[in-house]
Amino acid sequence: EVARFDIGRKLRTGFPEAILALGKDDDDIVQILLSSPTDPMIVTRLSPERFENIREEISSLEERGFSIKYNKRAHILVVKRDDKISLDSKVGIITAGTADIPVAEEARTILEEYGCQVIRAYDVGVAGIHRLVQPLYDMLEDDVKIIIVVAGMEGALPSVVAGLVDVPVIGVPTSIGYGVGEGGFSALYSMLQSCTPGIGVVNIDNGFGAAALAIKIIRAFE
Amino acid sequence: EVARFDIGRKLRTGFPEAILALGKDDDDIVQILLSSPTDPMIVTRLSPERFENIREEISSLEERGFSIKYNKRAHILVVKRDDKISLDSKVGIITAGTADIPVAEEARTILEEYGCQVIRAYDVGVAGIHRLVQPLYDMLEDDVKIIIVVAGMEGALPSVVAGLVDVPVIGVPTSIGYGVGEGGFSALYSMLQSCTPGIGVVNIDNGFGAAALAIKIIRAFE
Amino acid sequence: EVARFDIGRKLRTGFPEAILALGKDDDDIVQILLSSPTDPMIVTRLSPERFENIREEISSLEERGFSIKYNKRAHILVVKRDDKISLDSKVGIITAGTADIPVAEEARTILEEYGCQVIRAYDVGVAGIHRLVQPLYDMLEDDVKIIIVVAGMEGALPSVVAGLVDVPVIGVPTSIGYGVGEGGFSALYSMLQSCTPGIGVVNIDNGFGAAALAIKIIRAFE
Amino acid sequence: EVARFDIGRKLRTGFPEAILALGKDDDDIVQILLSSPTDPMIVTRLSPERFENIREEISSLEERGFSIKYNKRAHILVVKRDDKISLDSKVGIITAGTADIPVAEEARTILEEYGCQVIRAYDVGVAGIHRLVQPLYDMLEDDVKIIIVVAGMEGALPSVVAGLVDVPVIGVPTSIGYGVGEGGFSALYSMLQSCTPGIGVVNIDNGFGAAALAIKIIRAFE
Amino acid sequence: EVARFDIGRKLRTGFPEAILALGKDDDDIVQILLSSPTDPMIVTRLSPERFENIREEISSLEERGFSIKYNKRAHILVVKRDDKISLDSKVGIITAGTADIPVAEEARTILEEYGCQVIRAYDVGVAGIHRLVQPLYDMLEDDVKIIIVVAGMEGALPSVVAGLVDVPVIGVPTSIGYGVGEGGFSALYSMLQSCTPGIGVVNIDNGFGAAALAIKIIRAFE
Amino acid sequence: EVARFDIGRKLRTGFPEAILALGKDDDDIVQILLSSPTDPMIVTRLSPERFENIREEISSLEERGFSIKYNKRAHILVVKRDDKISLDSKVGIITAGTADIPVAEEARTILEEYGCQVIRAYDVGVAGIHRLVQPLYDMLEDDVKIIIVVAGMEGALPSVVAGLVDVPVIGVPTSIGYGVGEGGFSALYSMLQSCTPGIGVVNIDNGFGAAALAIKIIRAFE
Amino acid sequence: EVARFDIGRKLRTGFPEAILALGKDDDDIVQILLSSPTDPMIVTRLSPERFENIREEISSLEERGFSIKYNKRAHILVVKRDDKISLDSKVGIITAGTADIPVAEEARTILEEYGCQVIRAYDVGVAGIHRLVQPLYDMLEDDVKIIIVVAGMEGALPSVVAGLVDVPVIGVPTSIGYGVGEGGFSALYSMLQSCTPGIGVVNIDNGFGAAALAIKIIRAFE
Amino acid sequence: EVARFDIGRKLRTGFPEAILALGKDDDDIVQILLSSPTDPMIVTRLSPERFENIREEISSLEERGFSIKYNKRAHILVVKRDDKISLDSKVGIITAGTADIPVAEEARTILEEYGCQVIRAYDVGVAGIHRLVQPLYDMLEDDVKIIIVVAGMEGALPSVVAGLVDVPVIGVPTSIGYGVGEGGFSALYSMLQSCTPGIGVVNIDNGFGAAALAIKIIRAFE
Ligand SMILES: Nc1ncnc2c1ncn2[C@@H]1O[C@H](COP(=O)(O)O)[C@@H](O)[C@H]1O
Ligand SMILES: Nc1ncnc2c1ncn2[C@@H]1O[C@H](COP(=O)(O)O)[C@@H](O)[C@H]1O
Ligand SMILES: Nc1ncnc2c1ncn2[C@@H]1O[C@H](COP(=O)(O)O)[C@@H](O)[C@H]1O
Ligand SMILES: Nc1ncnc2c1ncn2[C@@H]1O[C@H](COP(=O)(O)O)[C@@H](O)[C@H]1O
Ligand SMILES: [Mg+2]
Ligand SMILES: [Mg+2]
Ligand SMILES: [Mg+2]
Ligand SMILES: [Mg+2]
Ligand SMILES: [Mg+2]
Ligand SMILES: [Mg+2]
Ligand SMILES: [Mg+2]
Ligand SMILES: [Mg+2]
Repeated sequence: EVARFDIGRKLRTGFPEAILALGKDDDDIVQILLSSPTDPMIVTRLSPERFENIREEISSLEERGFSIKYNKRAHILVVKRDDKISLDSKVGIITAGTADIPVAEEARTILEEYGCQVIRAYDVGVAGIHRLVQPLYDMLEDDVKIIIVVAGMEGALPSVVAGLVDVPVIGVPTSIGYGVGEGGFSALYSMLQSCTPGIGVVNIDNGFGAAALAIKIIRAFE
Repeated sequence: EVARFDIGRKLRTGFPEAILALGKDDDDIVQILLSSPTDPMIVTRLSPERFENIREEISSLEERGFSIKYNKRAHILVVKRDDKISLDSKVGIITAGTADIPVAEEARTILEEYGCQVIRAYDVGVAGIHRLVQPLYDMLEDDVKIIIVVAGMEGALPSVVAGLVDVPVIGVPTSIGYGVGEGGFSALYSMLQSCTPGIGVVNIDNGFGAAALAIKIIRAFE
Repeated sequence: EVARFDIGRKLRTGFPEAILALGKDDDDIVQILLSSPTDPMIVTRLSPERFENIREEISSLEERGFSIKYNKRAHILVVKRDDKISLDSKVGIITAGTADIPVAEEARTILEEYGCQVIRAYDVGVAGIHRLVQPLYDMLEDDVKIIIVVAGMEGALPSVVAGLVDVPVIGVPTSIGYGVGEGGFSALYSMLQSCTPGIGVVNIDNGFGAAALAIKIIRAFE
Repeated sequence: EVARFDIGRKLRTGFPEAILALGKDDDDIVQILLSSPTDPMIVTRLSPERFENIREEISSLEERGFSIKYNKRAHILVVKRDDKISLDSKVGIITAGTADIPVAEEARTILEEYGCQVIRAYDVGVAGIHRLVQPLYDMLEDDVKIIIVVAGMEGALPSVVAGLVDVPVIGVPTSIGYGVGEGGFSALYSMLQSCTPGIGVVNIDNGFGAAALAIKIIRAFE
Repeated sequence: EVARFDIGRKLRTGFPEAILALGKDDDDIVQILLSSPTDPMIVTRLSPERFENIREEISSLEERGFSIKYNKRAHILVVKRDDKISLDSKVGIITAGTADIPVAEEARTILEEYGCQVIRAYDVGVAGIHRLVQPLYDMLEDDVKIIIVVAGMEGALPSVVAGLVDVPVIGVPTSIGYGVGEGGFSALYSMLQSCTPGIGVVNIDNGFGAAALAIKIIRAFE
Repeated sequence: EVARFDIGRKLRTGFPEAILALGKDDDDIVQILLSSPTDPMIVTRLSPERFENIREEISSLEERGFSIKYNKRAHILVVKRDDKISLDSKVGIITAGTADIPVAEEARTILEEYGCQVIRAYDVGVAGIHRLVQPLYDMLEDDVKIIIVVAGMEGALPSVVAGLVDVPVIGVPTSIGYGVGEGGFSALYSMLQSCTPGIGVVNIDNGFGAAALAIKIIRAFE
Repeated sequence: EVARFDIGRKLRTGFPEAILALGKDDDDIVQILLSSPTDPMIVTRLSPERFENIREEISSLEERGFSIKYNKRAHILVVKRDDKISLDSKVGIITAGTADIPVAEEARTILEEYGCQVIRAYDVGVAGIHRLVQPLYDMLEDDVKIIIVVAGMEGALPSVVAGLVDVPVIGVPTSIGYGVGEGGFSALYSMLQSCTPGIGVVNIDNGFGAAALAIKIIRAFE
Repeated sequence: EVARFDIGRKLRTGFPEAILALGKDDDDIVQILLSSPTDPMIVTRLSPERFENIREEISSLEERGFSIKYNKRAHILVVKRDDKISLDSKVGIITAGTADIPVAEEARTILEEYGCQVIRAYDVGVAGIHRLVQPLYDMLEDDVKIIIVVAGMEGALPSVVAGLVDVPVIGVPTSIGYGVGEGGFSALYSMLQSCTPGIGVVNIDNGFGAAALAIKIIRAFE
């Protein structure tokens, strides 16, 4: 017995349990998926190599009516039967650099899987702040209700964005960077310590958590 | 010239600039208040001693039609003319311990000043988790849209609350604690690293930021 | 001469010296085992690859009447002749997540090797706290005398358990987690800083140490 | 309403809620004491100055049949009616230096208040390890069941003691020290990382927690 | 003998030794000043209280032809005979907030004392980035050769400025901030880890060092 | 769409955007290079293995008139058409040890690519400080305007150099070192905390940033 | 009973126990001194205020034939009867700055109390390295056997000295400094990570420990 | 030109420059060795794999009269012509565990190469402190002048040894350990913060530095 899946979590909290691949054996993941505790089942932080390892073993799920989708950039596996969830509110996702994209894609995959429409603007970071204006304008035009800002290095982008828009900003620090920036603490602390008040921050590289927060907010208000 | 007040911030971001008393001389604060850049003007982290120091000097504001309200537990000064802002959504505030109350009160004062109705439940921390059930039930009955959870020490309360309710949770770590808990990093990291995904975290002791985030969310959706 | 095995340690302290494989060459371990300083000999933190490397070389021990047992999940090798140790008291082991299981199994193997009966409940973490109730009830029914709680991420589970039961709790933080949780310090500090007093904490990932503490307590009182 | 006292905690966990004075106003403490939620009521980390401040205000408790005892070295206030609790097991307390004594006294006061007999040996630290032998011998002769070892600086004493005795050792790091030892992390890490396995560690300066753990162990086995 | 003043330093390095008041007794400072090792003599980090303490004792310097100037906001004392140094290049100084002004003033005083013309723009931080445009434009119009940017909290302003101008930027992190920002490390790391390359960073709160660097650059090129 | 290249950056800031290979896929880099956003295009932190991976795919650039130069020690790829940039000022580069050379070479490659003449003196560290005198003398003779000092371990060389010369010093800490020096923080802090004021410091291992700062200074003054 | 003085320590280790005033009450210190465990008795880290507090109470020691000497800069109290210890070897003490002098004086007092002759050179730090040459030359002429180098800030002086002389160097980091240098870790790490091998390092501000090491070395070889 | 070997260092400092393999290419090392700057040439931290890589290329040194000796456990390569250095004083080396042996062997190899006689006692750590007595007694009998104590984990052994002997102790922390002990900081801080004063500490895993310090001490006094 490796896992006691929390099947009621979606009912209770508006967001179902997902399977974090880190720290679990491939066998553990296969076993959880085959027991199909929820619909959809989402596995995060599953590297392409690990997906290859289990692909064969979970293929029987397709015969049982599940589709299997793996997103290589976001390292996410989605196994599901049903596709009807849909939310009205739109979410914007912005990254400071190219290297922040995998974390942003983790957030996007989760959001779309749960019915949100996502508008993206990647690589618009603070070193050339003019690149930010048009995408931000477009997002507000499109009436996004929340903007997720993903940034590594000095993590200044959420402060700048939050000082320009009137929708809530969720900051996701990334571990991109070297020297003092290694591990993402520099970006994390910038976001927490922002002089633009009112940024909700999640863990380093946690695109998943940012999406979960956005979905919980949307469900609470829709 | 000490300050270039950002008078347009509320228009742009839905939340006006506040005056952080830390790092400013009493003279700086008096000068900013007398120039009355916004309505209301909110000064945070102003200790009772410092309020006493400037009380006399800002009394002329009353003749100019402003009311002056100082909240001793929250260390907040509010100077305003107008009182008509009002929002529909309710916000719950929970603290783990008695010592977390000043931070919670900072959040409450800001929220109420901007028109939110607040429902409180203080000292319900994880060591006696049954104390949490009734207040949580009451808050959900009352249809709160967001719950702010303030906790020091091991900072576990937001995880537990977020695992039980379907509204978004904002976590505020406090610097309460000693030994490894000194400074609040232990609580902060617990909230960021929560195994309940979707908690939006703000800086240590930053009740102000939690309130700002809640207000921005509410404004975006109301 | 690589090791001066502390053969009298069990007599003095109630718990024999074990061989920590980290930082030792395979040759060192073989040499220590063949010189058979104690019975049983327990090697901890020995990866499956390293076990394969030395398997052949230590096989002569079987001819000398020792059994050789390797536990792959717990990374523990037990070489022994005798199996008669037995203690009356039972110990419960709980993990917050699936990824904490290897550390829990390290503790379980040691405990059982020294004659304790172990009752397990894995993956019952704080995000869905209701999963905790039944296993905890069962453990208390079964009259466990000590509960070992293994948790990574925010490490909140020991606090919650210790607030619900009247037996001593030993907390084992794990290095499961990423971002601020990387390395297990977040979990460690939560346990040390718990607002439920009276949790005995051991080093990060130290299932071995938790078992040793439990056995020493039981021996002292039985 | 400042506090929601957890009156059932002793029943549930074998150890009642105590009042941590840190982070609470004098008023908060008076209010909690006068509402007399438990018997005994124990206030920890209350400095002599703060005790003087509230002494007058809580004197009415004496008319209501409570005794009021303040221990200056341990910074503990005990308010109680009844004195009949008594446990059979004895506990040893050892300190490395003179400066560790206040933390040791915090533990002793709590232990005696809950009916344990305590045997002390203070200032026997590792720099002159011969000073340790006689007191340790006496404690074992007296059949102590648990030894609490309090040490600052390099925190080596628990390792040495645990390598010599067959009863469980609880390590309490103290914040005594300067330079790299400031704050007690050096001592804490030494105890967690001890090469004598099986030391249960509590937070820095947490004599209270060590006593709580000892009492929970004793209650579980007596 | 308390000090061996490095009288040749200006000749060698283009910038004379200054007297850091931290860690020196008032007596030490008086003794150094009266021995008048250089002209000018600059004492940094001398609080107003300490200046009051030594004022009397150093007044004899005035009879010897020195002027004595104390800048209260910058905590700098300047004692000099001669005033003829003058440089052609102008330097801009920008602060993010009001609380960063003392550090900026430390830099300004030093710069002006050594003959630079300084153009200031204070409190123009990233939360309202539009406030930055006009002052920056004016500075470039005025042909500043270097811009010193002083910022605490998340320390993002140097990145933004350096992404907009073609003169070198010197970043000075300040210790303004609380929680994760306490001590200024958050701001420091942001500046070092900036995604706009080419910012020269000095120690936290080190307005003095920023001025010294600017002067050395100017001297090397003029 | 992976990258929004900041093509105007050179115009605005005097230094063009470069491509940091860390955190980008090989595909991302190829795609950016083939779209040829600037001239020259510089890719930093590209390991020899990664260069081999993309070599083939970017060879078409040669047909389009670009030269492709890869510097193995500096891990830098330069793709350019034009070679006419040239600056008058010379820059000195000094390393403390042999192991600091790759970082120094990163700086040198960038500097030369942008038209600076560079004078090198490697392995002249503080343990044998006499080795420093001749090279330093030669550099000053050659009229260098800026000296970049690259040092790991205790990072003392910039302090010593800056105490001897009258040109500005840029300090680059390296991650060379083990134990307390691991990661380069020890060297970084030494440079920031130098008792020779006026050293401009860049991130650990950031030869690129040091070169960018030098170029910006030179452009501002030439 | 507060202290179990280690009276045999000098016999065993060549260096007697001293009384660290930190963490002890004034009463504790008086009690230890009046019981006169050794000759001499040395109390370290005793501030002038604390010395004033106990002066009266220990005056009876003078009647018993002890002399009482308090060194204000070194914060050391020496109480002794006998003055005949004398060692042949000389020790040099160097400080980088003026602010490091109190730590150097702590070392000097201890050394002289135990019979060493000390040669001092204060404020000769690396920013003006030429100031170092003469004093160093004089020390070597005088045939010092050990040089203690005391330095805060970047802590580079021991590296430079150890690269120039052929006697062993003991490094004492001091907590002088601000920003990244606060607390002395920057200096400590520089000394440990020195590229001149063979520096023996003691704790931050630990002049006492440096003297003890020097004395032990001298005793072992004389 | 990769290296400017400090050929005079032995003359100046009594200890020649050695070649740290970390951070140097194999080519760099070959080039330095073939240019034969000193006799002996010692390369430290050269892994067996790297030695295999260069073995062939440096074999020509043998024709030139050098012997080539590689110590696999210590990761040290010694290339020398001459073998006549010899010192009178003996040095003891003690390790706490088996895993500390490589660091101890690094020290031993260096010491013996420079003519010291070494007496070893490995794996005598504090968990079974009786194992320490005999070896320590033997060392003192043999008249060792210095004891080097190598320890990881909690690093308590140097404190204990220094409290028992009257020769100077050099502490070498090792990076052996996991959890809070990872990297060796726990052991380092214990040694610096030891309550037995007078331990000279070197960097983590720095057996080389310990040997260098011992040799410098011996040379100064012999
Ligand atoms: N300034 C000092 N720095 C470090 N250790 C000291 C100092 N002064 C005394 N000690 C030692 O610290 C220990 C003090 O322990 P205790 O007095 O029992 O709390 C004794 O072993 C003293 O020799
Ligand atoms: N308690 C608080 N915590 C965090 N930020 C605050 C607080 N009070 C005010 N602020 C914000 O901090 C900034 C203060 O910057 P300044 O007043 O210019 O130094 C403004 O953007 C305020 O909106
Ligand atoms: N505010 C300051 N920040 C950093 N360094 C300073 C400051 N003021 C003076 N200094 C330098 O710090 C050193 C002070 O060393 P000392 O006065 O000998 O303790 C001298 O080299 C000064 O030039
Ligand atoms: N997994 C483990 N975690 C902590 N300590 C251990 C572990 N396994 C063995 N030990 C203890 O660590 C010490 C090993 O030291 P050594 O084998 O001499 O390097 C012995 O005292 C063992 O009892
Ligand atoms: Mg980009
Ligand atoms: Mg409470
Ligand atoms: Mg789970
Ligand atoms: Mg003592
Ligand atoms: Mg402002
Ligand atoms: Mg070299
Ligand atoms: Mg000086
Ligand atoms: Mg061992």
